[in-house]
Amino acid sequence: MDLAAQATQATAFRALHHGPKILLLPNAWDVSSARIFEDTGVSAIATTSAGVAFTLGYPDGQKISRHEMLAAVARIAGKVRLPVTADVEAGYGNRPEDAALTAVGVIEAGAVGVNLEDGNHDAQHPLADLSLQLEKIFAVRETAQRLGVPLVLNARTDVYLAQVGAPETRYQETVRRLAAFRDAGADCLFAPGVRDIQVIQQLVRELKHPINILAGPGSPSVPELEKLGVARVSLGSSTMRATLGLARRIAQELLGAGTYRTLEDAPSHAEVNQLMARED
Amino acid sequence: MDLAAQATQATAFRALHHGPKILLLPNAWDVSSARIFEDTGVSAIATTSAGVAFTLGYPDGQKISRHEMLAAVARIAGKVRLPVTADVEAGYGNRPEDAALTAVGVIEAGAVGVNLEDGNHDAQHPLADLSLQLEKIFAVRETAQRLGVPLVLNARTDVYLAQVGAPETRYQETVRRLAAFRDAGADCLFAPGVRDIQVIQQLVRELKHPINILAGPGSPSVPELEKLGVARVSLGSSTMRATLGLARRIAQELLGAGTYRTLEDAPSHAEVNQLMARED
Repeated sequence: MDLAAQATQATAFRALHHGPKILLLPNAWDVSSARIFEDTGVSAIATTSAGVAFTLGYPDGQKISRHEMLAAVARIAGKVRLPVTADVEAGYGNRPEDAALTAVGVIEAGAVGVNLEDGNHDAQHPLADLSLQLEKIFAVRETAQRLGVPLVLNARTDVYLAQVGAPETRYQETVRRLAAFRDAGADCLFAPGVRDIQVIQQLVRELKHPINILAGPGSPSVPELEKLGVARVSLGSSTMRATLGLARRIAQELLGAGTYRTLEDAPSHAEVNQLMARED
Repeated sequence: MDLAAQATQATAFRALHHGPKILLLPNAWDVSSARIFEDTGVSAIATTSAGVAFTLGYPDGQKISRHEMLAAVARIAGKVRLPVTADVEAGYGNRPEDAALTAVGVIEAGAVGVNLEDGNHDAQHPLADLSLQLEKIFAVRETAQRLGVPLVLNARTDVYLAQVGAPETRYQETVRRLAAFRDAGADCLFAPGVRDIQVIQQLVRELKHPINILAGPGSPSVPELEKLGVARVSLGSSTMRATLGLARRIAQELLGAGTYRTLEDAPSHAEVNQLMARED
C-alpha cells in the first residue's frame, strides 16, 4: 500500500468513529485471528498489545521491544484488507521522540491508527505526567502530518485500569486527562476499566467526543453502549486469553480423560487453510 | 542452552518414546500456547507447522519459508524448559541438502526433535519417492550426528492423510514406507489420517517401533491407544484451529447479540501475565 492509499484508509477509518454505527473491534494478536475477524464482517482490525506480547512470550507492559511489536503489526496489516489500528502501549519510551519514532514505525507497518496510553506499569509512578503525555500526543500527530498519513489516535488513560488514586477521585482525573487529550487532537478517548453504565454515560456527555469502551463480561451490552453514544468498543486481550483458556482445556482433557471433546468445534483444516490462502 | 545440554535433552526426549507412559503432545503454535501446555504438565512441546503458518498468515504446505518457520521454533524453544520437537514439513526443499539445512536450523533453534514428512502437497505427485525420502532422513541423521545433537526423528508418511492410491492399497504402502523409515534410523513412525483401531493395532504389531498417532474427535481415546502400544499421540493443528473457532464465536457474538458470554472462561490478565513473566 502506498502512502496515498494509506492516507485514504486512515480517513475512512476516522469516519467509522462518527457513526452511523458503533465501531466494534475484537482485538487481534496475529494474522490468523485478524483474518478470522475480517471474515466475520468487522470494519477494522485493532491489535492487542498484551495479546501480541503473550504470543511472543512476554508479559504485558512494554517488555516486548518496539521493533517486535511493530513487526507483528506489519505482519497483520500486510495480510488483511481492512484498516488496522495498532496498540503501541506508551510508545516504547518516556520521551516525545520515542512516541514519534513509534508513530513512524506504525505508518511503515501499514497501520492507520494507534492507541497511546499514559500507564507507566510502575506502582510508584503509575501514570505519565499529563504534560509529558500531551507532548507525546503532539509528537504522534506531528509525525503523522509530516508523513502524510493522518493516523487515528485513540488516547488512553489508565486511571481506572491501574486504580490510581482514591476511588472517588478517579472520574475527575479521567475527565481531566481525556479532555486534555481531546484538546490536543486525539480522535478517540479511551478509559479501560470503566464498566459502570452511569460513568460511561457521564463520560460521553461531558467529553462530547468519540469514546472507546473496553467491554467484556459485566459490561453493558453493545446495544446499551450504542444507546449511550459510545463510538467504539474493543475487547482488549480478553479474546486472546479466552483462546489460551480453550488451549488449556484441550491439553487438560488429553492428559486427563484422554478424550477430544473440546476439539469438536474446531474449524476444519481445509476451512482455515482457505482463509489463509487469499493473497492480498 | 549449549550443545551438550541440548544433546542430553534430545536423549531424554527419545527415552519418552519408550515408556513407561504414552507421550502426549498437544501441539503448540506460539510461545503462549507452549507455555500454557507446559503449565498443564506435558512432558514435551511439539510444534504444529500448519498452526505456525496460520499465525503468520500462510496456508499449510510449505508456503512459509524455512527461515520463518525456524524463527517460530526458536521463539518457542527459547521460552520453555521442556524439550521441543519441530514440525518442519518436508524439510523445505526437494533435495537431501535441503533437509540437512533444515536440521541445522532446527538444532540452532534449540529444538531436539523433528517431524519430516513425505507429502508433496501436489495432486500429480502426492508423495516424495521413497528413495528420496530415505536420503532426506539420512541427511537429517548425518547432520544431527555431525553437530552432536541426536535429534529425535519422527518420520511421517502421508499415504492416508493425502488419500494416495486406492483405499485397499494404503495400509501396505504405509507399512512399506514406515518400515523403510525405521530401518533408515527414524525414532518414531507417523501416519496421520489413521483412526481405525484395527489399523493402528496392526501398525504397532507389524512395525515393532514407536508409533505416533494423530488423534482427535473420532479417534480411539488415549487409554485405548496406550493399550494398543502406541508410543506418542499428537493433535496436529486441531488445537490451534479450535482456538480460531472460539475467536470467531467471540467476534460473532460481539457483532450479533452484542454480548460477551463466550469470553467468560478467559483466564485473567494477571494469570496469563504471570505465566509469561517467568524468565528462562
